[in-house]
Formats: sequence, C-alpha cells, structure tokens
Amino acid sequence: MAMVKVGIVGGTGYTGVELLRLLLVHPAVELRAITSRKEAGQALGDFYPSLRGRTELRFCAPEQAALDECDVVFFATPHGVAMQQARALLDSGVRIVDLAADFRLRDTTEFERWYGMPHACPDLLAEAVYGLPELNRDAIRRARVVANPGCYPTTVQIGLAPLLRHGLVDCAHLIASCASGVSGAGRKAELGYLYAEASDNFKAYGVKGHRHAPEIEQELRRLAGLAQGDPGLRCLFVPHLVPMIRGMHSSLFARLTDSGRATDLQALFEGFYAGEEFVDVLPAGSAPDTRSVRGANLLRLAVHRPQPDTALVLVVQDNLTKGAAGQAVQNMNLMFGLPEHAGLQGIALLP
Amino acid sequence: MAMVKVGIVGGTGYTGVELLRLLLVHPAVELRAITSRKEAGQALGDFYPSLRGRTELRFCAPEQAALDECDVVFFATPHGVAMQQARALLDSGVRIVDLAADFRLRDTTEFERWYGMPHACPDLLAEAVYGLPELNRDAIRRARVVANPGCYPTTVQIGLAPLLRHGLVDCAHLIASCASGVSGAGRKAELGYLYAEASDNFKAYGVKGHRHAPEIEQELRRLAGLAQGDPGLRCLFVPHLVPMIRGMHSSLFARLTDSGRATDLQALFEGFYAGEEFVDVLPAGSAPDTRSVRGANLLRLAVHRPQPDTALVLVVQDNLTKGAAGQAVQNMNLMFGLPEHAGLQGIALLP
Amino acid sequence: MAMVKVGIVGGTGYTGVELLRLLLVHPAVELRAITSRKEAGQALGDFYPSLRGRTELRFCAPEQAALDECDVVFFATPHGVAMQQARALLDSGVRIVDLAADFRLRDTTEFERWYGMPHACPDLLAEAVYGLPELNRDAIRRARVVANPGCYPTTVQIGLAPLLRHGLVDCAHLIASCASGVSGAGRKAELGYLYAEASDNFKAYGVKGHRHAPEIEQELRRLAGLAQGDPGLRCLFVPHLVPMIRGMHSSLFARLTDSGRATDLQALFEGFYAGEEFVDVLPAGSAPDTRSVRGANLLRLAVHRPQPDTALVLVVQDNLTKGAAGQAVQNMNLMFGLPEHAGLQGIALLP
Amino acid sequence: MAMVKVGIVGGTGYTGVELLRLLLVHPAVELRAITSRKEAGQALGDFYPSLRGRTELRFCAPEQAALDECDVVFFATPHGVAMQQARALLDSGVRIVDLAADFRLRDTTEFERWYGMPHACPDLLAEAVYGLPELNRDAIRRARVVANPGCYPTTVQIGLAPLLRHGLVDCAHLIASCASGVSGAGRKAELGYLYAEASDNFKAYGVKGHRHAPEIEQELRRLAGLAQGDPGLRCLFVPHLVPMIRGMHSSLFARLTDSGRATDLQALFEGFYAGEEFVDVLPAGSAPDTRSVRGANLLRLAVHRPQPDTALVLVVQDNLTKGAAGQAVQNMNLMFGLPEHAGLQGIALLP
Repeated sequence: MAMVKVGIVGGTGYTGVELLRLLLVHPAVELRAITSRKEAGQALGDFYPSLRGRTELRFCAPEQAALDECDVVFFATPHGVAMQQARALLDSGVRIVDLAADFRLRDTTEFERWYGMPHACPDLLAEAVYGLPELNRDAIRRARVVANPGCYPTTVQIGLAPLLRHGLVDCAHLIASCASGVSGAGRKAELGYLYAEASDNFKAYGVKGHRHAPEIEQELRRLAGLAQGDPGLRCLFVPHLVPMIRGMHSSLFARLTDSGRATDLQALFEGFYAGEEFVDVLPAGSAPDTRSVRGANLLRLAVHRPQPDTALVLVVQDNLTKGAAGQAVQNMNLMFGLPEHAGLQGIALLP
Repeated sequence: MAMVKVGIVGGTGYTGVELLRLLLVHPAVELRAITSRKEAGQALGDFYPSLRGRTELRFCAPEQAALDECDVVFFATPHGVAMQQARALLDSGVRIVDLAADFRLRDTTEFERWYGMPHACPDLLAEAVYGLPELNRDAIRRARVVANPGCYPTTVQIGLAPLLRHGLVDCAHLIASCASGVSGAGRKAELGYLYAEASDNFKAYGVKGHRHAPEIEQELRRLAGLAQGDPGLRCLFVPHLVPMIRGMHSSLFARLTDSGRATDLQALFEGFYAGEEFVDVLPAGSAPDTRSVRGANLLRLAVHRPQPDTALVLVVQDNLTKGAAGQAVQNMNLMFGLPEHAGLQGIALLP
Repeated sequence: MAMVKVGIVGGTGYTGVELLRLLLVHPAVELRAITSRKEAGQALGDFYPSLRGRTELRFCAPEQAALDECDVVFFATPHGVAMQQARALLDSGVRIVDLAADFRLRDTTEFERWYGMPHACPDLLAEAVYGLPELNRDAIRRARVVANPGCYPTTVQIGLAPLLRHGLVDCAHLIASCASGVSGAGRKAELGYLYAEASDNFKAYGVKGHRHAPEIEQELRRLAGLAQGDPGLRCLFVPHLVPMIRGMHSSLFARLTDSGRATDLQALFEGFYAGEEFVDVLPAGSAPDTRSVRGANLLRLAVHRPQPDTALVLVVQDNLTKGAAGQAVQNMNLMFGLPEHAGLQGIALLP
Repeated sequence: MAMVKVGIVGGTGYTGVELLRLLLVHPAVELRAITSRKEAGQALGDFYPSLRGRTELRFCAPEQAALDECDVVFFATPHGVAMQQARALLDSGVRIVDLAADFRLRDTTEFERWYGMPHACPDLLAEAVYGLPELNRDAIRRARVVANPGCYPTTVQIGLAPLLRHGLVDCAHLIASCASGVSGAGRKAELGYLYAEASDNFKAYGVKGHRHAPEIEQELRRLAGLAQGDPGLRCLFVPHLVPMIRGMHSSLFARLTDSGRATDLQALFEGFYAGEEFVDVLPAGSAPDTRSVRGANLLRLAVHRPQPDTALVLVVQDNLTKGAAGQAVQNMNLMFGLPEHAGLQGIALLP
C-alpha cells in the first residue's frame, strides 16, 4: 500500500487520542503532524501517557505544520474550526475529514441555531459528504470534505435505516432512548463529569434539546426519502449519561406500518447489512452489550418485535471508535482506496 | 409511639440488608427475629459487615423464631415463600408485608405463567393490598397482607398516574425505557453480574419478557379505569442494566390525547403529588439523577413535553429503598398508625 | 437536649454537603446559617439535589450571617479562611471547628511551607486542640478551637496509636501505604478527577510530598512521646487514588521491637479501643473493606503479624464521614456535652 | 514469517479471552484448536461476544483437538491441568507455555502446600523455564516448557531486580503493597466479586497468605543470588482489590544499604532496562497509572527515594496482558524466533 500522509488539527481530546491510537499503528499511514497552539512543543508521549514510547511526534503550532503537504487532514477540534481552514487546505489539494459538526447539518440556519455561529463556507458545506460508510460509501470515496457523523446519529441511522428505506414504520413517531459513556462529554474540566459526580449515577440530559437531534432527523429524512424539514418524520431523541468510560447504547422504538407488520425484520436486517464488516446483526432474541465492542470499530444491533405493531432495535458501539475516530479512519480508507478495514481490525477489549 | 414487634423471614439478600439498615434505627420498631435456615446461628454483624456492633441479633431457624408473636412479618425471600406461610401468620393475628411477588399479580394464571408455580392461596391474594402508598394509602392502612410493589413498577406507576387518572394519553402505546443498578439483580453469584462483566458496560435485558411487565400493565389499567386484560392499555417495558450499585431511572413516553395537549403537565403533576413527602416533582426543564436519592425513601420525577403530542416523564428512585425496603417500611408505618415518615427521614448519600 | 445553634462557613464542597447531611437530621442542632459569597441567595436544595425538600435554608453572604449568634461555627472552607475569621468569632463567644488545615500543624514554619501562606494567628494556633476524640477527648470538651484532623492522619493515628503509646515498634521506619476514593480530592473541576480519567484506574500520587505527611508525623511523635521534629520517628506516607466515590484504606507497616514481638497485638488493640463506639477492632485474621463504613462515622481496623517482627494494621473509614464531617460532628457533640453519638448513628449504606 | 501452529487448552476464563484477542490478530500465528470439555461444540464468537465474526473456531473436546500437531500449546487452565498433559505433548514435540502455576515453584513441597496437590512431574518441573523475558530471555528461547509468571510476581520482580542484582537493599525487609483489578480473581461466580460487592470498595485480601508470595520470594532470591529458602530474603506481600476491571499496581518499599544510598537510582533503572521494549522507566518524580497500559503488553515503573535510606518503586501493568496473556505471547515469540513484539504492538486503550 502507498502510504497516506496524514495531519491532525487539534487532537488533545478523547477523540484525538483515539485517532492517534488507531493511526500510529495503521499500516498505510504516515502521520506527519499534529497541531495544537496550546500544547505546541509538547511530546505526544508526555501528553498522553498511553503513547509514551510509541511516537516521537510533538504537537506543533498550526503555522509550522505544513499541513498542505498532507494527503488528508483530520479535524479533531471544537466545532467551528474546520470550516475556517477547509478552503485553504482544499486549494492545496488536501482532503478533509472533520470529526466535529461543521459539515454535518445541510441547513446553515439550523447550524447557526444549534452551534451559535454563522457558517463560514456554505459552498463547501454543499459539497461535503456525510461520512457514514454503510449508507453512503460511494460518495465518500470521491469526497474532498467528509463530515464524520455524530456518535448518537450513527447508531440511530444504522438502527433505523432498513425500516425507513423500506417504508415499514410510522416516521412521525420515532423514539430514540440512548445512553452514552462519560467520554462522550469530551475531555473538559466540568463539575458534572467528575468521578464523584458521574459515578454510581444515571440520568437523562439534554432533554430541552441536543445538537444531535437535528442531525438525526436530517439523515433519517434522507433515508425515508423525505424532503428536509418534512414534519412527517420526527424522532424524539433522549440521551442518558452512563457511569462508564466508553460505550453507547440506543434503544430505538418505531410503530410498524401494515407492511412492516408483514415483514420478517430479522431477515430484513441481516440482508440489509450482509457483507458489512463493521455492522453485526445479532441473532433473534439478543441484546448487545457495549463492552462487546469496546475499542473496536464495530456496531452491533438486535431487532425485536415486542408488540405486534412495534419494532425495537437495540444498537451498541464504542462512541470513540465507530462513533468517532474509527469511523473517521474508515472514511479515510475509502477516500484513498485502501482496504476498508485497514488499521481497524483490533478486537474489542473484553473484559 | 408504641413499639411494633417485627419479624423478618429471609433477609440474606440486598433487600434484606436494606430493610435491616432501616429497621435497626427505626424509632418505633422492636426487631424480634430474622429467620434463615441456611444462616441459622450466624450473627447479623458477621454476615453483613455494615451491621457489626449495631445489633446482637442472629439468624435463626424458622421454627425457632416465634414469628407468631410479632405484629408484622416482612418476607424478604425468593418468590413463592410468603404465600406458603401467610395463612398461619394471619391466623395468629400477624400482618404481612411481602417484598417478593407472591401477592402482586391479581390473576393466578398470570402468576403461574411468570413465576413458574401455581399460587398457593388465591383467597389471600384476593384480600391482599397493593402497597404503593401514594396511590393506595387507605387500603394499606387496613390491610392484613400487603404486596410490596416491584421496583420498576413503582417508578412507572408514579410517573404515569397523573396522566392516566385524567385520561390524557393514548393508553395503547405507552413506553417505559428503564434502567437499574446491578443490586436490582439480587445477591446471586452469577457470571453476568460479576464486576468484570457488569462494569463499564450497558445493555438492555429481559427483552423477551420481564416479570415486572404484567405487574406494570395490571396497575396501569387500574389507574386508567380499565378492566384487567383490556388490550386498550399496553406498556412496552424495556429494562437496561447500568454499572452502578443502586439506583433506578425510568424514561416514560406517552402520546398525548387532545385533552392532554391542552393540559399544563407541570401543574398537573405538582398538584397530583402535593403533600406527598416521598414524591418530589422537579421544576420544569429538570432531569433527576439517581444519586440524588441514593439510600433515601424518595422518588423524584420531571415531566416534559418534547413534542407537542408527546409527554416524557423521567423518574428516579433508589431501587432498594423506595423501590423495595423503604417502601415496605412506609407501608408498615401506615398499617400501624405511625407517622408515615418514621424511620425514613435519612438524607440521600451524595456524593 | 438543649439545641446547639450552628453556623457553617463555606460548605459548597463534598465535606460541606456531608456536614449538612448529618446536621440537618441531628436531634440537638439548629442550623442557623451557611455562608458562601459565591452562592449567596441560592437555596441549599437547588445547589445539592440530595437536600431538596429537606431545608429552607439558603446560602447567604458572610456579612449577613449573624454567625456571632451561633454557639459553634464549622469552617468547611479552603485552607486559610478559618484563621482569618477565628478571633472575631471567639471574641463573640462562638466556638470553632475547622475542617481545613489552619489549626492542625503546631509549627507555623511547617504550615507556611506546606500551605504557602503565613499563619494569621499563631496564638490561637497554640490554643487550638487537635480533634481526634479517641486520642484527645478531654481537651476537645474544653476547646474553643478544634482542628478537625485530616482524613489520612485519622486512619494512621488510630491504626498506630496502641503500638506507639506502648513503645512496641521501631518508630524510625513506619510505612503508611494508603488509598482514598476520589471525593477526597474535593469538588474541583480538574481534568485528573474526571470520570473518564479516574475510573478504571489506580495510581499513587503526591509521592514528592503530601500535606498530610507533616500532620501524620507530628501526631505520631506525640503518641510516641517524642519531641516535635525528632528524627527518631519517621513515617513514609504514600497515598493512592482509587476509583470509588468514598472510602479510605490504610495499610500500615511497622517493625516490632523485642517487646512488640512479645505482645499479643490483637488483645492490645481490643483493649486499647474497648468502649470506643466509633472504632471497631475486627477479629484476628480479618481484612476490613471500605464499603462496610460507607456513610457511617466509623473506623474499622484489623491487626496482623505477617512476619514475626512486623505488624500490619489495616484501617478503613469513610473519608467524608469519620475522615471529615462525621468527626467534626463528634467533636461538636463533645464540646457541647451531648451524647458523643448524637446524630451519628446511621448505619453504613451497603451495598 | 513462518506460521506457528498454536493450540490452547482451556481458555474459558479472562486469561483465555485475552490470549485469543492477541493470537487471533497475531501475524505469525495459526490458531488450530482450543479445547474445553464443558463448552465443546460452542463457537468462540458465541461464548465471547467480543469475538463474534472474528473466528470460525469452536471449542472442542480435548481428545479431538490434535494438539500434538501444534508447535506450541498454551494452558489457560486451572492449576494442576498442565502438569498432567505436559509429558505427552512434549513427547510429540510440542512446546508448552503454562499460564497457570504448575511450573512456577521449584520446590514441590511448596507447590503442594500452596496448591493442595502433589506435583505430577517433578522432572519436567526441573526442566521448566520461568518465563519472565526481561530477566530470563535466553533460557526462554530454548525452553520446551515455560512457566508463565504470576501477575503480581511480574511487577515485583521487574520493580526490584535492579536493586537486588546490585545488592543495594536490605533483602530481609522488602515490602510489596500491591493492588489488582477484579479480573485478577478470574471468571468465577463468587459473591465477593459481584459488581454490587466489589464496586465502590477497597480492601486488602489474602493477608493470611497468598499463592504468589512463595513465587515472589523464590524469584527475588534468585535475583539476589541467594539460595532458595534463605531467610536473609523476605518480602511481605499484601495484595488489595481495586474496583476496576483490569490493571495492577505495586508499591515496593526497600531499605537501602550504604551502597544503595550512594547510587543514582534513576540512572540505575534506566540503564538496567535500556532497550527493553516492554518495560518503560518513567522520568524522575513520576507516578504511573494503570490505565496507561490498559490492554498493552507493557510495564511502567517509577523509582523514588522518599527518605534517604528508602527506595520506593511504583509499578503498573495490565494484569491480563503483561501480567498473563501478553507475556505468554512474548514468551512464544522468543521460543520460535519471532520478533519479540510480534502481535504485541497494540497501544493502550485510553481513556
């Protein structure tokens, strides 16, 4: 394999260290630079104790990074950074995978509403490709700008896609009752995420509105063949915080239409994801646990019909891997013609 | 206060030690005996390290317990024990609080289906009172046999009662997406509940059917004024296992009827539970966390309307306290004319 | 009992909420005021979800607190606050229990070295009494200013006192290998105490020097009858951070002298702490676990002689209760002639 | 690389699944068979959810395993199994790595005392090589039978080796205060390891004697050049149980001799382990955390001199990786002339 020259902007958060864990042992990646103005000069191995001895790389200031000599740049930054730097990189022939939200929402009004800033490059947004490989593989291969999906939206889309594509459910009353490990909140020093606050506890959060809600509905509408904003599709999204480091679980509830009631859901899902290396449809009657995918770029799901007219889909992933950094690498593999699983074959860490 | 003479049958599980924690410092309780054939002779303080130095009591064999001299006997036993011993105790004038399921399901066929044994005393079952004080206080005061509710059913009933009593929701499509700490599984040496299996993990369980499902639907029907078995009420119940010791969280979804859409839900709930010492309706926009009730006989809830036609109720309790032993003590207090909060005023342990 | 009028300065940290948990249900306490400039005006029940509905009290600004009308004021503040306000309160006849370190170190040079500020009132320091009731009960009864001990020092002193008082060990080579739950770090938004950092992890910390080290040696010298600074006593103190909310464990190693080798250590410890309600000497061969004292004002220990010339003492407590707020209440009880266990009889929360 | 044909006996515990996680993606391993009489016929992917889709292999009965066609067989079995089957395998030319204790203790009397059974093949025991590569590399290369070290002994030996080899410490008073995650107890359904018992708790265990104690002293004597049983070396070993899944931490205390006091310990350790890929000596003043090696075949340590005459060495590893399965693979790599790091380059999973 030809080596892909990779740069990372940001990378001091949990998504960043997960990206580094994967890229530093990726067989076709040459990691050229990682930028952080705040940490410039610091060795990665000093910043992340897990990387000691595994790389000589140091954080460097953005202007010294020569990112324009990379083939691809990952943005593991806060929202709003990638859209500021995208055009210059593209002009230098560099492709982009943004792990933040800058290129996820098609509607700039929605973006501004949820992220509190105007969009800096609506034209690039129009060009950007939503990076969920199992549902959008061909476009990703050709993309210059890939919007890596949010973690929750990944589980909800994969879990509902077979039902929506085939018109088997009442789109107006979808429910996603989801749960995430605490790393999903990022590496931020906030009281609510302290061990003594978040441990031995469970709660819902974001009940007044969560940024992943518009992303979920946007992509579900696309799957259902509906126009954006069509009120015929609504998904009530309720996230919960679980005292675990990694892991994400979505319990998805959908009312079946008549054709849905006549469908063998197990066969439908198995067929829909046949051949997908990173989506595992469990046998009928199963319930996936998050630990079974800890650290792996893998999403497991089980489909149930607990009542004649109701489908229940249970989905798990590691929020930092298939929900973020692993999926970003999967996108990169597609963009550069590498085997889709290159660097992504590690087995989940269990127990 | 006159002292209530109390006996406990069983009590070697988590519900048992919680009951002991509460009863040993209850101002109006004289704990006379606790029976366990297996542990007979062992001091409570040796069996439960938390009780060392707090009681001289020892487990004794059932036949040596003189339970017939008690005013009330708690059964903290596996399902099926209380119904075998109830009649003899009642005949001696002893009242009963059963923390297991023997007297919860009104329909003996349902009982047999879910618990795998025929019911031993259908006539006492007919007499038994369902022990959820906030919804059934007067009957409990007079009861000879109280069926202490299941932990999940407690949260679902308290969370939905105001909506059902006033006919504000579509009863046919209720959803309860619930989560429990691991102590809910009891003190059983099973692989799935080992620390190395249950920690850093989240999963749904019981998706093929859970014993609390018929109890939930039975009592919700009662609240809605429907006949037992009426298919006009169905509640899809999906429990999840959370890596925490104690705590239970229920996210309840209900479609509002026209009158429901016209109702101020916050005012409804505040009014419904006004004066209830053990139900705390949070301000609008809140999300309760389980730790806020850790070890307290208290249930906290918040009501939301995330979509115009959907109500979302978030409910928390400590599964061992308000969800089991605390509620049992609350029932006892009612039965013996004690202040309802006697022995139940401990503040939650936070952090 | 006459009611003791109590004020609290500070109280927004974990020690504060634990103090409130105990004082709000203390049978002889009237909580008059709690001050916090930052949170002035906020209801306690809004700040601490566990206290909702349990008090009408609000944080108030210090100048509005009328602390001079209290019988006793607890300082649950950062280090350095109590010593600034102590004199004025004493002049008003108010007694003081400081949960911080202002009055722990007898030597102002040591204080300045470890806490980075000069001592504001050396004369009061000279008067202050070290508040470890089991070792200093009479002085506490009469004290105007009580220095509530550090959490680690409490375990080390109780664990070694019988050996030191009787001259049974080589004082020059004591080792305290200790471990604390994360709440010991306080309620501070620091990266290292985030759930995703502190969970599923174990490490030593403070190995270059910890503020509790001089306090430990000071008090051990006193127990051994040595002058302060005497190099004949040294205790190597190594703290570790455990992924649990509450709990503290100390493994204490001491080389036995000839007379130590000739002593029945089990009998020594049982005798030394006979009659102490809050120190529980376990039977020979035991190992105490921290959960057995969770939320209780209790210290449990076991003494071993794993090698003929070595004593090993294992000690546990809840760092927030017997290690901080519970001990402060115990001191208050002594100071005001209350039963020493008033308000401290809650049983540990297990599981 | 030529492929090594590998068999596994046992493998249904945590050491087994860790071995599978490593071997299934090892570039030079062909996994031929895994035996379990109890699970015979079951697919690995059904038994371990983390392995679903990663192997077609099934457990098979021992007699159907054709282990004699393997190059090497790993025993991930209870103690006592490997010594029964070793000779037949060796006679077929198969080499053995035993992850249990059958070949660790040189003295069969000691083995019988600690493991409660007579040794089945003392002659093979005499031939067996203790598999700690950093201290015994050459012998391992040639070995037919390798005794994979215990987890605790690995940390203690690596941590003390530089001091003992150079005669820098008082061998008669070594102390190892160690801590392990719960997976160290194995995959056994015992009450004490339930989530609700082991979580939010810390305790010492095995204080009356632990099987790793004789192994530690045996190997420390070898390092110190002392005869077996020489009372001039004693190491007091106190293990503790930490509420985490994986991870092991050892705090090692040693009194320095005069030459030890004159030695630059940091330089000593850095020099001693220079070139060792799997031992990382941290910079002076550090404290390693277990999560920094989670899932990695790596041991990190820091050496301190907290008092002029005392050395403190802090050591961490993942008990299942460098403490068990990873070290076993490292031994296999040496035995078959593979690069020592083959299959062992995964980066620790952090957070």
